[in-house]
Amino acid sequence: MPPIHRIAQVSAHLLKTTTTKYHATAAQFTSSVTRNYTSSSASAPYKVTKKDRAFYPYALDIQSRWADNDQYGHLNNAHYYSLFDTVINTFLIQEAGLDPHNDIQGNAIGVVAESGCQYFNSISFPDMIEARLAVIKLGRSSVVYQVGIFKKLSADHAHSVPQAATRPGSSPSSAGVFSKAATAISQPEDEANVRAVFHPSQIQGDVAATGHFCHVFVDKISRRPVPIPKEIRAGLELLQVVA
Amino acid sequence: MPPIHRIAQVSAHLLKTTTTKYHATAAQFTSSVTRNYTSSSASAPYKVTKKDRAFYPYALDIQSRWADNDQYGHLNNAHYYSLFDTVINTFLIQEAGLDPHNDIQGNAIGVVAESGCQYFNSISFPDMIEARLAVIKLGRSSVVYQVGIFKKLSADHAHSVPQAATRPGSSPSSAGVFSKAATAISQPEDEANVRAVFHPSQIQGDVAATGHFCHVFVDKISRRPVPIPKEIRAGLELLQVVA
Amino acid sequence: MPPIHRIAQVSAHLLKTTTTKYHATAAQFTSSVTRNYTSSSASAPYKVTKKDRAFYPYALDIQSRWADNDQYGHLNNAHYYSLFDTVINTFLIQEAGLDPHNDIQGNAIGVVAESGCQYFNSISFPDMIEARLAVIKLGRSSVVYQVGIFKKLSADHAHSVPQAATRPGSSPSSAGVFSKAATAISQPEDEANVRAVFHPSQIQGDVAATGHFCHVFVDKISRRPVPIPKEIRAGLELLQVVA
Amino acid sequence: MPPIHRIAQVSAHLLKTTTTKYHATAAQFTSSVTRNYTSSSASAPYKVTKKDRAFYPYALDIQSRWADNDQYGHLNNAHYYSLFDTVINTFLIQEAGLDPHNDIQGNAIGVVAESGCQYFNSISFPDMIEARLAVIKLGRSSVVYQVGIFKKLSADHAHSVPQAATRPGSSPSSAGVFSKAATAISQPEDEANVRAVFHPSQIQGDVAATGHFCHVFVDKISRRPVPIPKEIRAGLELLQVVA
Repeated sequence: MPPIHRIAQVSAHLLKTTTTKYHATAAQFTSSVTRNYTSSSASAPYKVTKKDRAFYPYALDIQSRWADNDQYGHLNNAHYYSLFDTVINTFLIQEAGLDPHNDIQGNAIGVVAESGCQYFNSISFPDMIEARLAVIKLGRSSVVYQVGIFKKLSADHAHSVPQAATRPGSSPSSAGVFSKAATAISQPEDEANVRAVFHPSQIQGDVAATGHFCHVFVDKISRRPVPIPKEIRAGLELLQVVA
Repeated sequence: MPPIHRIAQVSAHLLKTTTTKYHATAAQFTSSVTRNYTSSSASAPYKVTKKDRAFYPYALDIQSRWADNDQYGHLNNAHYYSLFDTVINTFLIQEAGLDPHNDIQGNAIGVVAESGCQYFNSISFPDMIEARLAVIKLGRSSVVYQVGIFKKLSADHAHSVPQAATRPGSSPSSAGVFSKAATAISQPEDEANVRAVFHPSQIQGDVAATGHFCHVFVDKISRRPVPIPKEIRAGLELLQVVA
Repeated sequence: MPPIHRIAQVSAHLLKTTTTKYHATAAQFTSSVTRNYTSSSASAPYKVTKKDRAFYPYALDIQSRWADNDQYGHLNNAHYYSLFDTVINTFLIQEAGLDPHNDIQGNAIGVVAESGCQYFNSISFPDMIEARLAVIKLGRSSVVYQVGIFKKLSADHAHSVPQAATRPGSSPSSAGVFSKAATAISQPEDEANVRAVFHPSQIQGDVAATGHFCHVFVDKISRRPVPIPKEIRAGLELLQVVA
Repeated sequence: MPPIHRIAQVSAHLLKTTTTKYHATAAQFTSSVTRNYTSSSASAPYKVTKKDRAFYPYALDIQSRWADNDQYGHLNNAHYYSLFDTVINTFLIQEAGLDPHNDIQGNAIGVVAESGCQYFNSISFPDMIEARLAVIKLGRSSVVYQVGIFKKLSADHAHSVPQAATRPGSSPSSAGVFSKAATAISQPEDEANVRAVFHPSQIQGDVAATGHFCHVFVDKISRRPVPIPKEIRAGLELLQVVA
């Protein structure tokens, strides 16, 4: 069994410094769920949260499946983590050069150190799921992702959401899309800006679940943490937001 | 435990009368895999088979997931059946009035009597999957579906494939699409017709897997076969093809 | 994409020669479901079928999971194939020398060419599942397994079913068990023999589902069929029965 | 969509009061992984942690499945949550009177408000998994479970671990087992006591993952929090430990 001490240390360090950010506070819980962008008064500055689409710079549509529903007729809680996995790895493969089929020894691989999820609203098959992704912590060897799971809005409500550009060798429907995020590292965050840039569908707080997911990159053989590979880091930087 | 004798009889009857149609013959195996529509000579009539997209009147795109891949790096064989389930139930719910959340006693429900799959080419995450659907046998109480699983072609190759029309209350990406099938019940089948109607991407035989799936409708309580509900039957008739 | 013509030929040949054996006839459907061994008259010879535990020389207990149940409260049909996979690969790894972690190039790997399942009775979480395994066709490059899925009987009914012997390095509960099969290649099949050897719990026909599963062994790189590796063949021969 | 404000308040309250307990501290990370009970000196008091089997009063063996392994050959991270679900609901159904098939309106149902997992060691198919369960917070409407996922030890190492007693109507293998927990509410916790009661296999810290899982009981229709039903509460109290 590989030594995991260093992974544990990195993970523990991340936890100490970011735990408070993972968990929504009681105030967030009660204030933002039913709030709708269009009903906020002009004078009260709007704060985009992890429950808003506008928090996340990247999105992937995932068709729900019959087997996702559990006995109570809603997406089983465990399957949400499979959605996390899917949006994260689609991003890493399509936008950050990850090749999971590459077997060269000594390569860095990302192992999961921790994950967590809070559930707010249910989703049911055959809903189309919109999985959105941000990076809230980028360390030397590790990265903490924030994921938002939404029920895809119908065309009527989502007509102005940015669509994927066609890229050679991939169909539009198979690729995640980038969209401007209210909280992206380099952007000012005042509400005027948010109002100017985002469609109400992106900031209305109808989230199904939010979660975090921590990857630590380790050497494939020794299992010791190694720096995040350059190409992957460049990709991850595109998703960094102010948490 | 409910009586299943009648289900068994219906299922056995279906098997006797349709088994030969389920299984590709050796000739089909070796002739159609690499054949490409555009290379077929004009004089040899082209026969659309279950390995061609053009065989199927309905299609649903399904995003593959990280957890679909097994240890060998390809979609696990069991997950194909989850794709069958998903395209069939999406069709039944969106196009044929099925409401799986409806708990009214005495309702007919569809139970699975049999399924099967043949595998031809592998698919890997994060490929977009195209699941296509036809009905090859429609009885009083039961229906046999044929499903074709394809890797979605990129925009470059698929630009003329019919797209879903926007319907109120659903996003384009969440809905399956209808397209003309070479083998639909009311159509002549000569190659000229196929050439005229179908884009090469729909008939090039690059199928990943084909399968069949038999639903028997039974009374929810007594578990005895009942006639297929009228609205569902009307939907299924839209998918009937000459097998 | 690798050449699959030879796989297809092998698979098609197997289908031609064994298809009739895969599918239960109408007579089997209606005669054996409710029959109980203890009520059969002494004069009518008893024929063990694929619906009897006694048909299968190998068994593995698999704990059902909450997520196995679908919206109707029963094991989802697609998950049965995951049970097939599990009993087959547990046997191959624990009893026939398969090492799926071994990456040596040129090795034979087993790919799935075809699978199928017939459903008779439902199973629900948290039932313990008993997956039973036989080999009904053993070719040069390919093997056809027969699988029976049963609800595990409680201790009261199953007290005389053979238990796993403890083996070094594995817990009893993690290992499949061998038991005498009525239909094993070298055994006579008259009912007297069955009565003498099998406990009623092994031949009472309370099967949930039966299925078949075809592995073709191919070269990892060229994807062409190769002979089944010697150690694996020796293992498979232990499971051969008269279908 | 049902009102979830009250759920959110309860959940937020639980988070404020228990968050520090969910996450292992850095000290725990580095101190307990390789420590083995038998090598601890007699003078240093031993503190049972969430990484020890002895922390948990209840256990269920779960056979891993072929499809659990991901492309890297280890149990996929999302499947761990399916194990959480399985041990929790098996306990609730078999020991605390939960009946998920019961459709009576007005009944309390448990919805998942939050979950989380930390990963320490990998597990691979066909390992037998040992899922262990405790209750670390029991409120009026909600409960926080702690789960430990272990690789089942072979018979050689686990010979003295308490086995399930046979209960009428269930097989031994289908039932979870109770065992004495070092941290159970009413017990003293000094090491002498631990040494006296626990087998080394129960406290050697070879955990694969630890997680928490929060159920809030709500009215099926109104979705407002309701008191945990009496019978379920009585069951949960059996699992309460000092976290």
